[in-house]
Amino acid sequence: MDRTGDAQAMSLPQKLAALRGQMATLTLDAFLVPRTDEYQNEYVPACAERLAWLTGFTGSAGTAVVLATKAALFVDGRYTLQAPQETDTNLFTVKPIVTEPLVEWLVGELPKGSRVGIDARLFTQDWVESAEKKLKAAGLMLIALGENPIDAVWTDRPAPPCAAFKVQPDEFTGESSQSKRLKLAEKLKEAGQDAFILTAPDSIAWLLNIRGGDVPHTPLPLSFGILHSDGQVDLFADECKVTDEVRRHLGNSVRLHAPESFAQALTEQGNAKKLTADPSISSHWVFTTTPNITRLADPCVLPKACKNSAELNGTRAAHLRDGAAVASLLASIKAGDDEMALMARLRNLRAKGAYFRDLSFETIAGSGPNGAIVHYRSTDKTNRKLQPGELFLLDSGGQYQDGTTDITRTIAIGTPTPEMRDRFTRVLKGHIAIATAVFPKGTTGHQLDALARYALWQAGLDYDHGTGHGVGSFLSVHEGPQRIASKPTPLGTLQVGMILSNEPGYYKTGAYGIRCENLVVVQPVTIPGGEREMLGFETITLCPFDRHLIDLSLLNTAERDWLNAYHHRVHTALTPQVDAPTRSWLDAACAPL
Amino acid sequence: MDRTGDAQAMSLPQKLAALRGQMATLTLDAFLVPRTDEYQNEYVPACAERLAWLTGFTGSAGTAVVLATKAALFVDGRYTLQAPQETDTNLFTVKPIVTEPLVEWLVGELPKGSRVGIDARLFTQDWVESAEKKLKAAGLMLIALGENPIDAVWTDRPAPPCAAFKVQPDEFTGESSQSKRLKLAEKLKEAGQDAFILTAPDSIAWLLNIRGGDVPHTPLPLSFGILHSDGQVDLFADECKVTDEVRRHLGNSVRLHAPESFAQALTEQGNAKKLTADPSISSHWVFTTTPNITRLADPCVLPKACKNSAELNGTRAAHLRDGAAVASLLASIKAGDDEMALMARLRNLRAKGAYFRDLSFETIAGSGPNGAIVHYRSTDKTNRKLQPGELFLLDSGGQYQDGTTDITRTIAIGTPTPEMRDRFTRVLKGHIAIATAVFPKGTTGHQLDALARYALWQAGLDYDHGTGHGVGSFLSVHEGPQRIASKPTPLGTLQVGMILSNEPGYYKTGAYGIRCENLVVVQPVTIPGGEREMLGFETITLCPFDRHLIDLSLLNTAERDWLNAYHHRVHTALTPQVDAPTRSWLDAACAPL
Repeated sequence: MDRTGDAQAMSLPQKLAALRGQMATLTLDAFLVPRTDEYQNEYVPACAERLAWLTGFTGSAGTAVVLATKAALFVDGRYTLQAPQETDTNLFTVKPIVTEPLVEWLVGELPKGSRVGIDARLFTQDWVESAEKKLKAAGLMLIALGENPIDAVWTDRPAPPCAAFKVQPDEFTGESSQSKRLKLAEKLKEAGQDAFILTAPDSIAWLLNIRGGDVPHTPLPLSFGILHSDGQVDLFADECKVTDEVRRHLGNSVRLHAPESFAQALTEQGNAKKLTADPSISSHWVFTTTPNITRLADPCVLPKACKNSAELNGTRAAHLRDGAAVASLLASIKAGDDEMALMARLRNLRAKGAYFRDLSFETIAGSGPNGAIVHYRSTDKTNRKLQPGELFLLDSGGQYQDGTTDITRTIAIGTPTPEMRDRFTRVLKGHIAIATAVFPKGTTGHQLDALARYALWQAGLDYDHGTGHGVGSFLSVHEGPQRIASKPTPLGTLQVGMILSNEPGYYKTGAYGIRCENLVVVQPVTIPGGEREMLGFETITLCPFDRHLIDLSLLNTAERDWLNAYHHRVHTALTPQVDAPTRSWLDAACAPL
Repeated sequence: MDRTGDAQAMSLPQKLAALRGQMATLTLDAFLVPRTDEYQNEYVPACAERLAWLTGFTGSAGTAVVLATKAALFVDGRYTLQAPQETDTNLFTVKPIVTEPLVEWLVGELPKGSRVGIDARLFTQDWVESAEKKLKAAGLMLIALGENPIDAVWTDRPAPPCAAFKVQPDEFTGESSQSKRLKLAEKLKEAGQDAFILTAPDSIAWLLNIRGGDVPHTPLPLSFGILHSDGQVDLFADECKVTDEVRRHLGNSVRLHAPESFAQALTEQGNAKKLTADPSISSHWVFTTTPNITRLADPCVLPKACKNSAELNGTRAAHLRDGAAVASLLASIKAGDDEMALMARLRNLRAKGAYFRDLSFETIAGSGPNGAIVHYRSTDKTNRKLQPGELFLLDSGGQYQDGTTDITRTIAIGTPTPEMRDRFTRVLKGHIAIATAVFPKGTTGHQLDALARYALWQAGLDYDHGTGHGVGSFLSVHEGPQRIASKPTPLGTLQVGMILSNEPGYYKTGAYGIRCENLVVVQPVTIPGGEREMLGFETITLCPFDRHLIDLSLLNTAERDWLNAYHHRVHTALTPQVDAPTRSWLDAACAPL
């Protein structure tokens, strides 16, 4: 699958040579090409796919570094297998960014006095400050450009997207935009500030109760904004995106401006008022364009993360439809089905549900050895038929207007080996440990992470990804600040209403992959006789786990009880939603163990 | 118990007035009096007990802040009950430092331009930098003094201690001082530095294979040093401490100097060479006295924490004798015994063992409600007799020349309530979860902490102290960098050979306290079929847990198996070491459950 689209496009060597020509004109000794766009998005529009254009690599994270005579592509552990398959390794050496940090590599490669170029819109202020310090110490200069040299040579670059914004009704948001804006305005006043520069499209979506269609899988309204301490907002969005309905919804307190006027507004307002932005989210360009800017954490992040009851009711309803779709697919899977056919069938099942808008990410459907590739994506080349004796890992999600879903099930095709059952059951034990955890207010996801890994650790095993990520409300399927991970989470105390995934896994390269994923909501827990203010998780995903993969001898009574109660709940909830064959399948799949 | 000794001493109001007189002379608006000394010790010699002299408070941590007309005593959670009992609360308002940070309190109390005085030797460079930033932002000045105004008015201040250093033989250290010095010298060279300023007495003890007797409970050789990149050391120690034997042991590579010449040496050597010190350990005075000083983590800390096999064999041998002493006491305890009598009896039992040198801290012997005071110390006023239906918490340790011990056992006097058994069993489950944990290399103690709390959390309970601290080898009973705690441990990856305590607890104010503490050693773990490099813990403390407090219905099979195997091991090890009555007691105490 070639996202760049045009078969007549320049070859990779030609693109690289063209970029090097631009670098020479700009007297740059290095140029950095990240995956992200000027909104620091995870999913980016086609016009911002500079990394894929230059390297062929289509993963969701990575950075190319182009020097005069060599080039490298830095990717994280998810993409060390995929990147060499997609790029031309004669042009780009693929580097694991965790063990070979990019800036350190630059320092080792470049002589003192070298000029390292970046597009100032594509790197956060925090990244630039940290990188600049290290480069300076090594005698290298960071050159922040206002224009991207790739854009000058990308002749068939797609136009920016222009999908219409849509109103997200109060029924689903649970709070009017005005109410949200006035609350945050109070916080700005308390902090002694006049305005906050909004650069995260999901913050704008949440604050203004709008959604967009500019990028795949996440209904982001690509735009910038300035929230003022009187609750009014300046919104910088292409006119083509703003329908009359949206205009009426936004009202007089949201002033619309052309995106081209954003830079001038930052400069002018920065000179007149106390402007703030979040250096971990906003670009270096925002910080250099705005005079007298002050750092402030994006005030939308925490209220967006802590869902209200309308948002939670919506996501529960979405999970009911989503669980019915996934169960219907699982009921139908048999040996001989292939990955891509199952992906299409699942999409159709989801699309039948009310409020369906999109998938929340490209489905990961990994059979046999493909399941061991954590962020696998089926292509015509890799597509396989399911074979007896194999495992099939299916990680997928939907965007419904009332909620965002993300679920992984791993099933056995035919008879699994004892090793597969041992590994699956250990992963499931970790999943249950998180699902049933109760913990004092103030606990971080980092503190809980070991619970998910303990049963694997006891067998000398582990997995190299986080245990849980935050999830939005008809918004990003990866949302901060909440997460459950082996890396510390500085802002990560778990708070009531946060939605997270619970997804421990196990991967045997070349053989199979296992992941058990439900979404959970942080909820208060009252324990009779308890002394502390405790929190716990409500599981909202509804779909059975494959009983053929469970080694009951490894489960303790409490784990078995949880599983049976969960399956009973799934059975009761899904049975009315599915067809007769799926009902029969559910009867068997959810029977007590 | 009055550590200040002299019954003719000034009253607390007189002392406070005298200090305020000195502050007026120095035009100070505030003066800070911490518990620590110029070595940043946890246990300090009598001459450094300025906080106890001024306030009456004898806890191991706390800071008094004296203003012109008010004064406060900041203590942590361990001492919020004890401090108001010991000080005069008409003079000093006791403040919990966690919820009311000291610097923030100063900022709230003092007008702009106020001068806040400290003794530059008694605060680390890190503390001063952080505090100064906050004070400056509020318009306050931090005044770092070279002399302590308390010393000018403390008329009966004891002389500095002068206990003779003793050689710690290679048999126990497992490595000669020369070998250690040359290894660290290599590290200094690699870092491009000429010397490291040693200000932590336990680092000096470890590096030079000496021990001292200057403070209670920890065999610290109070002194300063400079380690050079040729492996030579300048040692600044009072001549009275250095016997001929120690002089011979130190050899020509360790040059002895009078303590008074330390400042001059720092100034002269700082001008001639590249000197380094650890800002988290060394005082502000060291950093301001030494020209061109560079920050470097104390290179002794990690090799000191990772014990070699001689140190581990020594500590195992010490734990055998220590376990025999504690078991002999436990075998003899009956209702009617009082706390202080049991403390004395336990000390005598320990002192009978080979290589006994001291207790490793003041024994905590808390019966009934006294057990709920985490750092309780029996006094004539608080001493109680053990009564049927109560719990007795005994936390104690010994300093043996071959190892340092620290053990807590909680026992029932008569018949415990179901609640006591429930709580004890949950604490024990947490203890077993740590004891049996296996985890990948690179894991921190912070990541494991939730395992110790999980069973309590499930009942809505928790405890407000760390789960484990590092322990030295015939050195500090609290040693870094390793720990297991709910707060993050930046330098806290667990490494082979580290000794830690494993001590979850539960405290019911006014009723009882429970703590189960063994020491453990980080060890490599090989798991058949495992894929990762795993670590785990070897438990080295040997003494039964009270079976009367265990609710077997709360233990799973693996926990019960661990407990029975541990008791079997304890029985086998201790039986040959104890008298007949204790043997009979061990037979019953260690029988399978």
